[in-house]
Amino acid sequence: MPEITNARHVVNEYTSGYPIPGQTTVYDTTQTIDLDTVPLNGGILAKVLLLSVDPYLKRFFNPGSPVPLGSPITSYGILKLIRSEHEKFTTLGAILIGHGNTRHEEYTIITKEEVASGSVTALTPYENLPLSVYIGAAGMPGLTAFTGWKKYADPKEGETVFVTTAAGAVGSLVVQIAKHAGLKVIGSAGSEEKVKFLKELGVHVAFNYKTTDTREVLKNEGPIDIFWDHVGGDSIDAALENSNIGARYIICGAISGYSGQPAPVHNLARIMYSQINIYGHFVIPLIPQYQAAFDEEIVPRLADGTFKYREDRLDGLEKAPQALLDVLNGGNVGKSVVVVGEE
Amino acid sequence: MPEITNARHVVNEYTSGYPIPGQTTVYDTTQTIDLDTVPLNGGILAKVLLLSVDPYLKRFFNPGSPVPLGSPITSYGILKLIRSEHEKFTTLGAILIGHGNTRHEEYTIITKEEVASGSVTALTPYENLPLSVYIGAAGMPGLTAFTGWKKYADPKEGETVFVTTAAGAVGSLVVQIAKHAGLKVIGSAGSEEKVKFLKELGVHVAFNYKTTDTREVLKNEGPIDIFWDHVGGDSIDAALENSNIGARYIICGAISGYSGQPAPVHNLARIMYSQINIYGHFVIPLIPQYQAAFDEEIVPRLADGTFKYREDRLDGLEKAPQALLDVLNGGNVGKSVVVVGEE
Repeated sequence: MPEITNARHVVNEYTSGYPIPGQTTVYDTTQTIDLDTVPLNGGILAKVLLLSVDPYLKRFFNPGSPVPLGSPITSYGILKLIRSEHEKFTTLGAILIGHGNTRHEEYTIITKEEVASGSVTALTPYENLPLSVYIGAAGMPGLTAFTGWKKYADPKEGETVFVTTAAGAVGSLVVQIAKHAGLKVIGSAGSEEKVKFLKELGVHVAFNYKTTDTREVLKNEGPIDIFWDHVGGDSIDAALENSNIGARYIICGAISGYSGQPAPVHNLARIMYSQINIYGHFVIPLIPQYQAAFDEEIVPRLADGTFKYREDRLDGLEKAPQALLDVLNGGNVGKSVVVVGEE
Repeated sequence: MPEITNARHVVNEYTSGYPIPGQTTVYDTTQTIDLDTVPLNGGILAKVLLLSVDPYLKRFFNPGSPVPLGSPITSYGILKLIRSEHEKFTTLGAILIGHGNTRHEEYTIITKEEVASGSVTALTPYENLPLSVYIGAAGMPGLTAFTGWKKYADPKEGETVFVTTAAGAVGSLVVQIAKHAGLKVIGSAGSEEKVKFLKELGVHVAFNYKTTDTREVLKNEGPIDIFWDHVGGDSIDAALENSNIGARYIICGAISGYSGQPAPVHNLARIMYSQINIYGHFVIPLIPQYQAAFDEEIVPRLADGTFKYREDRLDGLEKAPQALLDVLNGGNVGKSVVVVGEE
């Protein structure tokens, strides 16, 4: 087979500001690949079907990024096996899931060492769940919601929880888990469309933080017992001003500071008299402890429709640079997924 | 007996800034009392021997203070029983300890309701411990150190702890508990004399934060696993820049913001990737859980000299206004105690 183009989504320059598609985050078509002859050296060759676009990917474009200039970034992805030199994967055409280090390119070689380290595993999806859900609500974002809730929330029926970026991939599962646990759920989002989605999810108090003052809502609907935050800065201050004694804060993101100076927090001293606990939540180390419970409690409920999810599907890897900018500035509504190839 | 003066330490005005002795915090001698005839209405009359002066007393002078203008503030105190109409206290001359709501006056009536609520209890001190220690290292400040350490620190031998205001009433016990637990202890204080005291306590790395850059020390001697803070603001930022994965922060004060705008925290987003937990520590609700262990583990070690303490004793209630200003701006060295009367 002749060499064909292997398009990639690469880091072209580092910036602490928003990544600019075509300048910072570049769709690059200069590389080619011969699928039949490219050396695998004991690894596997896969066709990339789907790639996840998440706010945390911004860090690959920051100064100090672990990704060299000109190289593709990595994320969670869904793959199809094309060739294998590794005994772990022998069924050509099998569907695989790449755990965080799937390179943003149309065809990708996963080295022998990467395969051995468990960076990809085989996937057997539920009939009712599209593959893309396994990099969304049934994948890392879902696990983020579930592990943080299990580890830190300590929820009691009748308590009040406030979730920022509540319509996002993580937040939308958090609000549903909280609602099912019998809590009063307050959720904020950045557009009327997202607020509508939150209401469809059964969020008790859904509001657009751009047109409604967060402090007013919390003053009227709080005080809050659990705060799940993806925003940082002023949202934490607003929560501190309206927290119940003994509140738990799960800090799961700080999107307000990803592309510029992080917003400072002024009211941190309030955590003392209010005996608030603040947990910095990072999903990866918690997965071994909670994966089995997640597979049992959450994934079947996604398949049977108890828990809902929403996706923004974008066709073509060339959309990935813009998709990243969108998730950083709120331009998407559901979980952002780039469809790179067909099964 | 004729009426005698009953001097008091009263709130004369509210201020968000530093309290000015003679203007904000006033030593008032306008009231009199007849010790024989003053009505007790089922309560008790006590002579005040010792009063504790702690940074948190600043809140009684803040706008929104629970203490009316012209009334005495309250703190922990040591009392001697003069008259009693309450069956709980019948031995005249008995030594009592007032738990936080001892009014700053030379003679004080504790109402029937206050006695019933447990606001004063009888005290039987160790022979080797002066009474004042029971409002210091063996009292609320000691309990603050002990309960916070037990509840939140989760210490492992060989870990590194950083304590601010380390020479203070709470900090000086924290550093000793940490040292005895096999941790490396870094302590900061605001004068050379305090640094000398820290070295006497066996603190491994003691420094004056006014002349030595905290970030440099933490960079060289950290990363830190446990952060015990009384300062807030920039000290938290410095810790965030030099914390180990999984660090625990015990926020036990925010003295940098007690008399002005609290300093904002810029790096809070770092708690996410570093999986830091931050605990707002308030001693009062934890006392029931830990009082017995404190009496068993700490108080005997204060009596036998294993754990050391240092006091700034000031003679006369008229010193209380200045004493409060001193503990707020770092003018004291040890636990600040005002000697109001003699046994």
